[in-house]
Amino acid sequence: MKIAVLGGTGRIGEGLACRWAPRHEIYIGSRDIEKAKEAACGYACRLTDRGLECNIDGTSNKEAVENADVVVLSVPYEAVLELIECLRPVLKNQIVISLVVPMKKNQWFEYTPPQEGCAALRIQRMLPGINVISAYHNLSYKKLCNLDLEIEGDVVVCGNDAVAKLVVMNLTREIRSVRPLDGGPLKESRMIESLTPFLINMAIRNGLSDLGVKFV
Amino acid sequence: MKIAVLGGTGRIGEGLACRWAPRHEIYIGSRDIEKAKEAACGYACRLTDRGLECNIDGTSNKEAVENADVVVLSVPYEAVLELIECLRPVLKNQIVISLVVPMKKNQWFEYTPPQEGCAALRIQRMLPGINVISAYHNLSYKKLCNLDLEIEGDVVVCGNDAVAKLVVMNLTREIRSVRPLDGGPLKESRMIESLTPFLINMAIRNGLSDLGVKFV
Repeated sequence: MKIAVLGGTGRIGEGLACRWAPRHEIYIGSRDIEKAKEAACGYACRLTDRGLECNIDGTSNKEAVENADVVVLSVPYEAVLELIECLRPVLKNQIVISLVVPMKKNQWFEYTPPQEGCAALRIQRMLPGINVISAYHNLSYKKLCNLDLEIEGDVVVCGNDAVAKLVVMNLTREIRSVRPLDGGPLKESRMIESLTPFLINMAIRNGLSDLGVKFV
Repeated sequence: MKIAVLGGTGRIGEGLACRWAPRHEIYIGSRDIEKAKEAACGYACRLTDRGLECNIDGTSNKEAVENADVVVLSVPYEAVLELIECLRPVLKNQIVISLVVPMKKNQWFEYTPPQEGCAALRIQRMLPGINVISAYHNLSYKKLCNLDLEIEGDVVVCGNDAVAKLVVMNLTREIRSVRPLDGGPLKESRMIESLTPFLINMAIRNGLSDLGVKFV
């Protein structure tokens, strides 16, 4: 599959790109093409060093999306709305995965959903006819980027289209030891989005770090 | 410690009563005193059969609370507001633990918080000066009631009073293998309350049952 990872030059985007690269064609997208190429090159080196073949390229967000079957939005909420406006002309029948969490930090992190109820619904409203799926909000990027690690955790996948959801659940299954769970329709994304600031706060309060979630 | 478990004649209340009974004085409270006495007797038998000494009595809700240091509200949201009105005269300095989740079922379960934002805040507003703590929403009662079971799961504890919260976290630690986590102030109870219908729905959608949550 051809996967565009927008915001793929670091953190969770980096982790997903590296985990998927041995089996898929990955396009790292960024506003800064040089940065995208550099990141792609770095990930390819890491994977090659581990004896893994891979196919990762860095390019502009628009070109990454044009090439893709699946588009991963791994960017801050503040940046995603403008990004989507810019991508709209090249979005046709790609599956769009939102990792977006609208939140602000005062003393603690606070979930700040838009009036639609959650970021995923806002993005869906901006992209009528496109299959938006919500997932990967509650994965620690540090754990995801450590390719030696078997991640103990679940990924809740929300979306309105059953086939698109299945595609994302299957992609999730390829991340070693991670279990995908069907979280229901896109509006349920509110739960997994709001869990992100809650997990960060709880980690701080309890002297923990890089918390994910597992349903037991 | 003296612990009143209101709504202690079944489910999660039963589980907590049985798990705590070997170390504490438990008062099972119910509107129906006979039912409370019967439940208490049943739990005492189960524990005695396992060679555990225990001190469990069944009584009215009001008498249970009068005797108690800690009061567990393990009743449906629809019943709790009236119950609190009735208990108000005997509530002085007890710690009140809310397990309450306001939810309704249509095709799926849906969280239906009051205008305060969550049930715990509503209860706190009805009981000014009383330390309300929110916990145990995401424990499977079937697992809790199976006394042979080491429960794999975390209990998030929310509350505004640090000492009261510590008391509840210590009580939680007495439940074998359960880890208490500080979830922050009482308003954060919204997250753990809303997780309950989400867990039930997700269990149904994914062919699972009795889901709890663990932060990993």
